[in-house]
Amino acid sequence: MTTPLRERALASRDATAAIAALDTTSKRRLLHRMADELAASATHVLDANERDMDAAKANGTSAAMLDRLVLDAPRIAKIVVAIRDVATLPDPVGVVTRRETRPNDLVVERVRIPLGVIAMIYEARPNVTADAAALCLMAGNAVILRGGSDALHSNTAIAEALQRALMAEGLPEATITLIDDTRRETMVELLQLTDVVDLAIPRGGEGLIRFVTEHARVPVIKHYKGVCHLYVDRAADPSMALRLLVDGKTSRPGVCNALETLLVHRDAAAVFLPTAIARLRELGVEIRGDDATRALVPDVASATDDDYAAEFLDLVIAVRVVDDLEAAIAHIRRYGSDHTEVIATQDEAAADRFVHALRSAVVMVNASSRFSDGGELGLGSEIGISTTRLHAYGPMGAEALTVERFVVRGTGQVRHP
Amino acid sequence: MTTPLRERALASRDATAAIAALDTTSKRRLLHRMADELAASATHVLDANERDMDAAKANGTSAAMLDRLVLDAPRIAKIVVAIRDVATLPDPVGVVTRRETRPNDLVVERVRIPLGVIAMIYEARPNVTADAAALCLMAGNAVILRGGSDALHSNTAIAEALQRALMAEGLPEATITLIDDTRRETMVELLQLTDVVDLAIPRGGEGLIRFVTEHARVPVIKHYKGVCHLYVDRAADPSMALRLLVDGKTSRPGVCNALETLLVHRDAAAVFLPTAIARLRELGVEIRGDDATRALVPDVASATDDDYAAEFLDLVIAVRVVDDLEAAIAHIRRYGSDHTEVIATQDEAAADRFVHALRSAVVMVNASSRFSDGGELGLGSEIGISTTRLHAYGPMGAEALTVERFVVRGTGQVRHP
Repeated sequence: MTTPLRERALASRDATAAIAALDTTSKRRLLHRMADELAASATHVLDANERDMDAAKANGTSAAMLDRLVLDAPRIAKIVVAIRDVATLPDPVGVVTRRETRPNDLVVERVRIPLGVIAMIYEARPNVTADAAALCLMAGNAVILRGGSDALHSNTAIAEALQRALMAEGLPEATITLIDDTRRETMVELLQLTDVVDLAIPRGGEGLIRFVTEHARVPVIKHYKGVCHLYVDRAADPSMALRLLVDGKTSRPGVCNALETLLVHRDAAAVFLPTAIARLRELGVEIRGDDATRALVPDVASATDDDYAAEFLDLVIAVRVVDDLEAAIAHIRRYGSDHTEVIATQDEAAADRFVHALRSAVVMVNASSRFSDGGELGLGSEIGISTTRLHAYGPMGAEALTVERFVVRGTGQVRHP
Repeated sequence: MTTPLRERALASRDATAAIAALDTTSKRRLLHRMADELAASATHVLDANERDMDAAKANGTSAAMLDRLVLDAPRIAKIVVAIRDVATLPDPVGVVTRRETRPNDLVVERVRIPLGVIAMIYEARPNVTADAAALCLMAGNAVILRGGSDALHSNTAIAEALQRALMAEGLPEATITLIDDTRRETMVELLQLTDVVDLAIPRGGEGLIRFVTEHARVPVIKHYKGVCHLYVDRAADPSMALRLLVDGKTSRPGVCNALETLLVHRDAAAVFLPTAIARLRELGVEIRGDDATRALVPDVASATDDDYAAEFLDLVIAVRVVDDLEAAIAHIRRYGSDHTEVIATQDEAAADRFVHALRSAVVMVNASSRFSDGGELGLGSEIGISTTRLHAYGPMGAEALTVERFVVRGTGQVRHP
């Protein structure tokens, strides 16, 4: 019999005190035990995954979706290593970020505490079950996991392994709660539990994220899409710009930090574009350009307005020649998704203007957009990339799962003596 | 003719670039000019306020509400000074909070940028129009103000004065937008403009805040209520505890950081409670206590469960004798509102346990709850107090109206060379 959602959510809330109170050493030991238990359950998890795969295939699920769903021994080993990696992260909880003595001798500290209960809403990838649980727990939070129905057997097997570790460490099983009722109305109920859920993080396609935003009453941090731009300035080093373009577009086109649009200063276009387009084509990239691009490389297809707003997630790129830096900025402001933008330039003033004029989560000078990732930017691990300009903006690590509060110590001060 | 809401909101969004780009000196000059213009418009603002007051009186508005609504010359002078105070704050925009060089020599910085467009939703107090605008602008944001219909003439007169300062400084008038259509459906439309509004901050009664939370699709930071506790530990200094109690309960009972509940360790109760209750009664405070309290002071009224959850905002206090520190913590966890809690104790271990076990926004040791205020805690000015455990928790100053993003500088690094 399934426990009703609210009852399970309240158990999750009750579990927050124990995990919030654990010291760093205990949390690390817990995570290693979670890794051990998952490694020991590999066969069981693979069996469960096979059931999910069989059902998915019978339902005519796409090859891309099946690839996200499937587990094998190396993938499980990777998940186990990822949990151990989280255990090496600095503990954000209890960190004193500021300390000030006020004129009346009150000592005011800002101290990081866990958020409380985090609801992860995700789709096919079963590794999220372990990744998200590990990071939430390291930051002292309880987690409610609501994965896709396609991955339910896999997610259940993984969550059960992790829960065995919780119990072995004397923690409530409800510190990690997997919602096995994957009906949409149950998800909506979860997203409206304002007295339980402190933050919901949806991870998946735009449809899921829009659905979560529509129905949530609890705070949501989301990432809609990554329409990442490379702007090749007049003062760019052409060979460096080409390297950034190739890496950004082709090293992994299906991810959110891949490039989707190339903007080129008109003074650089004649030299840069023919070579760049030829190289991209060798690598199988389809080019869609504006008239100026097509004047330089006549057989390029014509780019539409939709192309400039598109997250292709594929070997396709939109190209546009712009009059100057300001035109590049205006283009990105109009079509961008606030994810990641790159300028290639040797002109420091142009770089500074690009950085200051854009309010994207990550702005890069002479570096590949593919570095827009929690691991690459030094967060150690990542629970998602926020394009919500609140709380956390850009890659979110363990610290983004905490908040600063005030601790005040006095000697009997009163406001109206 | 009223401009339709969406058109005005888009103008606000378009205005964000100019205010975000202003340097500190220019923002300070702008704020002083806003103060000048408001001071110069005092007569006009007072006339407008008189119209609001006449209408409110004709509608039978309560005396408390009228007191919030009314302006006079000293109150306007106070608003003018408050704007100038905001101009003295440190500028949070552009602050580099962290800088790290990665193993591949990428330099990764976290830099504060404005949130963008902030929607303030408030009720009768016209000073919020100026206070909120000043703080939002100092943090580089555009602001959309939606005040109560009762204060519309006052708010309009204030906003027009501030907008004259904007125009004199060459900034778009839409940097400060006052919504003059105060119908609820227009507020709902505003709260669902996810492509414009980066943050909504409701300030007012619980009804308004619940309405905003119900209907918002944009992020909301809210403050429901302040059920603040003073726990008098066994190891408290009784005279200090009494000072904290009197200041917390009686110095301004109508505000959110006033005390609502007194918890007393049973070993301290016999000495502390009779004196404390007698003193509170001298000051006109009504006492509602549990059986143990009534055993010590027989003529105390009996406290109900509702009393322990109540934000009285009045000269009333709920009192309870608890078995020990853990019982005090359990009581606060059950009835508290995550706003502000105080422990009076000379026992450091007890203080530490109290601080760590509670996850309220502000936890104080031996200091009055009335210090739970942006100005008192060193934020300079305050746009509200968040009990949402996300982004900002506790008093929110200018910094809480910004977010950290990533700026990455490289020399051509790629992820898959």
